[in-house]
Amino acid sequence: MIKVSIVGGTGYTAGELLRILLHHPLVEIESVISTTSVGMPVAEVHRDLLGETNLLFAETFDQPDVIFLCLGHGLSRDFLEKNRLPQGCRIIDLGNDFRNEPVFEGKEFCFGLCELNREMIRKADYIANPGCFATSVMLALLPLAAEDLLRDEIHVHAITGSTGAGKKPGETTHFSYRDNNLSVYKPFKHQHLTEIGNTLKAAGSSQVPQINFVPMRGDFTRGIFASIYTKWHDSMPQMEMIERYKSYYAASPFVFVSEKSISLKEVVNSNKGLLHIEFHNGYIHITSIIDNLVKGASGQAVQNMNLMFGLEETTGLKLKGSAF
Amino acid sequence: MIKVSIVGGTGYTAGELLRILLHHPLVEIESVISTTSVGMPVAEVHRDLLGETNLLFAETFDQPDVIFLCLGHGLSRDFLEKNRLPQGCRIIDLGNDFRNEPVFEGKEFCFGLCELNREMIRKADYIANPGCFATSVMLALLPLAAEDLLRDEIHVHAITGSTGAGKKPGETTHFSYRDNNLSVYKPFKHQHLTEIGNTLKAAGSSQVPQINFVPMRGDFTRGIFASIYTKWHDSMPQMEMIERYKSYYAASPFVFVSEKSISLKEVVNSNKGLLHIEFHNGYIHITSIIDNLVKGASGQAVQNMNLMFGLEETTGLKLKGSAF
Amino acid sequence: MIKVSIVGGTGYTAGELLRILLHHPLVEIESVISTTSVGMPVAEVHRDLLGETNLLFAETFDQPDVIFLCLGHGLSRDFLEKNRLPQGCRIIDLGNDFRNEPVFEGKEFCFGLCELNREMIRKADYIANPGCFATSVMLALLPLAAEDLLRDEIHVHAITGSTGAGKKPGETTHFSYRDNNLSVYKPFKHQHLTEIGNTLKAAGSSQVPQINFVPMRGDFTRGIFASIYTKWHDSMPQMEMIERYKSYYAASPFVFVSEKSISLKEVVNSNKGLLHIEFHNGYIHITSIIDNLVKGASGQAVQNMNLMFGLEETTGLKLKGSAF
Amino acid sequence: MIKVSIVGGTGYTAGELLRILLHHPLVEIESVISTTSVGMPVAEVHRDLLGETNLLFAETFDQPDVIFLCLGHGLSRDFLEKNRLPQGCRIIDLGNDFRNEPVFEGKEFCFGLCELNREMIRKADYIANPGCFATSVMLALLPLAAEDLLRDEIHVHAITGSTGAGKKPGETTHFSYRDNNLSVYKPFKHQHLTEIGNTLKAAGSSQVPQINFVPMRGDFTRGIFASIYTKWHDSMPQMEMIERYKSYYAASPFVFVSEKSISLKEVVNSNKGLLHIEFHNGYIHITSIIDNLVKGASGQAVQNMNLMFGLEETTGLKLKGSAF
Repeated sequence: MIKVSIVGGTGYTAGELLRILLHHPLVEIESVISTTSVGMPVAEVHRDLLGETNLLFAETFDQPDVIFLCLGHGLSRDFLEKNRLPQGCRIIDLGNDFRNEPVFEGKEFCFGLCELNREMIRKADYIANPGCFATSVMLALLPLAAEDLLRDEIHVHAITGSTGAGKKPGETTHFSYRDNNLSVYKPFKHQHLTEIGNTLKAAGSSQVPQINFVPMRGDFTRGIFASIYTKWHDSMPQMEMIERYKSYYAASPFVFVSEKSISLKEVVNSNKGLLHIEFHNGYIHITSIIDNLVKGASGQAVQNMNLMFGLEETTGLKLKGSAF
Repeated sequence: MIKVSIVGGTGYTAGELLRILLHHPLVEIESVISTTSVGMPVAEVHRDLLGETNLLFAETFDQPDVIFLCLGHGLSRDFLEKNRLPQGCRIIDLGNDFRNEPVFEGKEFCFGLCELNREMIRKADYIANPGCFATSVMLALLPLAAEDLLRDEIHVHAITGSTGAGKKPGETTHFSYRDNNLSVYKPFKHQHLTEIGNTLKAAGSSQVPQINFVPMRGDFTRGIFASIYTKWHDSMPQMEMIERYKSYYAASPFVFVSEKSISLKEVVNSNKGLLHIEFHNGYIHITSIIDNLVKGASGQAVQNMNLMFGLEETTGLKLKGSAF
Repeated sequence: MIKVSIVGGTGYTAGELLRILLHHPLVEIESVISTTSVGMPVAEVHRDLLGETNLLFAETFDQPDVIFLCLGHGLSRDFLEKNRLPQGCRIIDLGNDFRNEPVFEGKEFCFGLCELNREMIRKADYIANPGCFATSVMLALLPLAAEDLLRDEIHVHAITGSTGAGKKPGETTHFSYRDNNLSVYKPFKHQHLTEIGNTLKAAGSSQVPQINFVPMRGDFTRGIFASIYTKWHDSMPQMEMIERYKSYYAASPFVFVSEKSISLKEVVNSNKGLLHIEFHNGYIHITSIIDNLVKGASGQAVQNMNLMFGLEETTGLKLKGSAF
Repeated sequence: MIKVSIVGGTGYTAGELLRILLHHPLVEIESVISTTSVGMPVAEVHRDLLGETNLLFAETFDQPDVIFLCLGHGLSRDFLEKNRLPQGCRIIDLGNDFRNEPVFEGKEFCFGLCELNREMIRKADYIANPGCFATSVMLALLPLAAEDLLRDEIHVHAITGSTGAGKKPGETTHFSYRDNNLSVYKPFKHQHLTEIGNTLKAAGSSQVPQINFVPMRGDFTRGIFASIYTKWHDSMPQMEMIERYKSYYAASPFVFVSEKSISLKEVVNSNKGLLHIEFHNGYIHITSIIDNLVKGASGQAVQNMNLMFGLEETTGLKLKGSAF
């Protein structure tokens, strides 16, 4: 059994990790750490876990094999500076601290996008888990990057669920505001753009074109719907490109190309990514959907753990989607 | 023109008052008072009012004819203790301070349920505007109280929209929590029970039976849906009772009895109350719907103002419902 | 491996069965039968199953060990009259055909409420899977029935998600109608009342008091929230009764008593039932929540299958809830 | 009083027209025509109108001054071929029949975008009311077209509420499907593209660049949120352009430029259009919001009527927004 510790245990991504790991056949949760709730039952904060665990929040870990950092962005560095991990303990960071600056105190963090870095991840000790928006966009673009077909600007609109904004209540997550509402935030300057660019290069793109990215807040709780297009000047037949998408993901158990147009709930509560590709007006148009908390965060983190520990990639991740 | 001042101007009920009063043909909004936002444009807080008003939040009022108190419950007393109103200024309090204790510093507050106290309100200077849950339940029961037919326990489930919980964000108004969710709160002990009981007596009930009231939080923004039943032992034919409901509300321009079963959105964004009555299992079952912010708060407050100033009761309140 | 056939394969409960059974470690889906979609990929109808199955809809079954009937209410009889099942094939009917009339052509259908009939189900060949509303109400009342404490009228309001109304679109499932809306239907006369009454008797109640049941349509997709109360005249201390609830369900892996008040999403997308108990006004008040498609239909059907085939009751049913 | 007849009276846009016109001070609704519901009370179909009208659906009109056609797209021609209108009767067509082919049987239909064609509309007898998506996009682009600054491709994502799909229930308007969901439809080829192009030319654009338009289905009932950008190579200071937007709409009582970013509900249930403008990456980015049923359909139709009959443009259209 892999002994796991979860740090930052009261937040959304920690809750989602617990939901997944409590049913993972090869994991034992050693500790769930929260400085604010020490001694409290985990199921009193993550109320849906009633009957599934008797764990209490702990102040610190014991001897985990792997530690998941579910802290706010910027706080993982802090944590690692202040806490000495046991010998050999691996790290999976769900924050953004090491995605673009992967070296810290002699540790090298591997960017944990399994569909791109599967082999590196198998050998890695430290993982920077990708951002949710970034995951949805990268899955849509990796096959084009691999063929070095990203030559022109990329246009992205992506709409995210409210859980992407975290647990702390605020104006734009107030139900009275958000229900039946939509809004744009940080247009053209979202912080995930850097990791998207770096990843496309790593995937084989000789250049990273400008990405015009308009993120939006949707009035749903889970999921990201990304609509992406870029010029298609290639002489390759369109069907051929769709086939290359399928080949690219043939070994990936969670990413699929749909012949039919897709709707967000087809992936909600699963670790899947679905893509749909059409060609119009001289553009290739890709829609890409993931669950922001699963494939966009905690599910992908477990997928990384599975690879790091030599398990089947899908272990504990064959989740029943909610569909409705 | 009636000069109006609104105190507590940044909250939900103040915003809704503004939405109504800005289009009221006989009202001039003299001041919108907020201690926290003095000098700020009103339309920066109530963003939907852009283009409809250039008012700024003020520190205090000038010479209003009527002042609407949109403060948190318990704060109206405070305000009246600390502020001297101009001679002759009327008060409509949307809080619960004077609903059950109507006398304060020599002022007598009339309970502003227009359908019951229309004539008293016409002569009143001070109004305690009814609570939202209370309004939905009282409208359902007034005709039974008037016939003194409330002899047995009354069973009430009533589900409210998120705006009933006010503007301050919190755990149970977080979109991630509330969307697609339901919960019970304060079962059997909601604070509106007292005003409901008092009102039924005032309406003619020789007794006030026990009211078993289960309030619920719904995953919608506006409206209250109340489902109410009590024993029906009367020898009166059922159709006759329905007719008496219709007669009771014949002079009330906002309350109607529907022959068909009703759904909440039939009243949302209007000042209407709709009732539907059936008889089953020896019970009379009444469903009652209002918009909590309109008939349950600010619309009813304007209805009271209209009566107090001798205007047509519906002035400024013929609102387009949203229906969807 | 248990070979399974699913009849009525395009509907909601069939889809949900597939979502569960595709990941069940001891099940092989032999056939998914739909007279209207023969030859079509199952994942074209249940779009979220893309990448999880290559099954096609079939016209008929081969040699299943168990057949799940996911037909409209009243159609299971028809199906069994027209189709000859293989020798020894078990049946789990998700419709209401055999809940109240359990004998059909020499077959005796056991009422599949595992928490009551666990031992009978282990020996049964034919199961009538309980209704969704009925399940939520029965779980709330079984411990009281077992103590023969149901002496007075029972008051029930229960609100259901839209998936309870099935796949065929109609007026009350139109998004424009249902979003942010609420309505009552079939008050005091819902068809599940009979099976609830029968079950309470079977659970030990010497009588079945009148049940005043007001079902409502909620503006969410999954789940039933039931709020139930009945007179509490017992001399038993209240804490003692709560302990008896816990004892009653001690051996049941999916039903739990929550000390804190509950909200619907704590069970959504899981096979759990959660109960919360309070005492007020001389009443015992129980709130009860389930996912109508899982514990209220397909999950419970799999739970029954597990028992019938001697498997651990929770096999394939340790589902990650959606929580949000 | 203007005598009005509404044809196609049971649909969504007819209902919304009724909601507006019943409170219009200078309108008398002469007839609401529906071939399927003759003799039925209008308030039995549009249930929220209970208490507001006793009108019955009629088979035909009498002597209206203006007739609103609320028929399905393509059916207005049919209607006009089969029905002889009274002498002098004006027509406002809410369908798309005459938007791009404005001449029919000697009648010339004026494109009813008030913000562009105000003066022409004042003199027109026949109006082709703009489409909802088109309205949201055109309002965003008119000032650029007027300055002839549309030189490059235009990128548009626009998300619409479910009422845009009409009353007939179907797969993509089923609550179980649509709630918490998102999907793309008709990407790059929506039928409104033609009227957008024609209008931009009429507004002063010397060319109509390619418009890359991705329409989406949102999980809300009312409203369109459009996010639009195009290259900004102009030497004009950015603030200057924003001022030109404000000037362009200075005489338009319903369209406003917001300094702050906007969210959809700021216009829901009103006839307003709000715009917000930013500059990033060499692009001008405009967000544009309207209520699809009001400014995008019936409200705009009444605005046209007001202009045609010499009334104040805002008569009957100072609607209380819902805000929540």
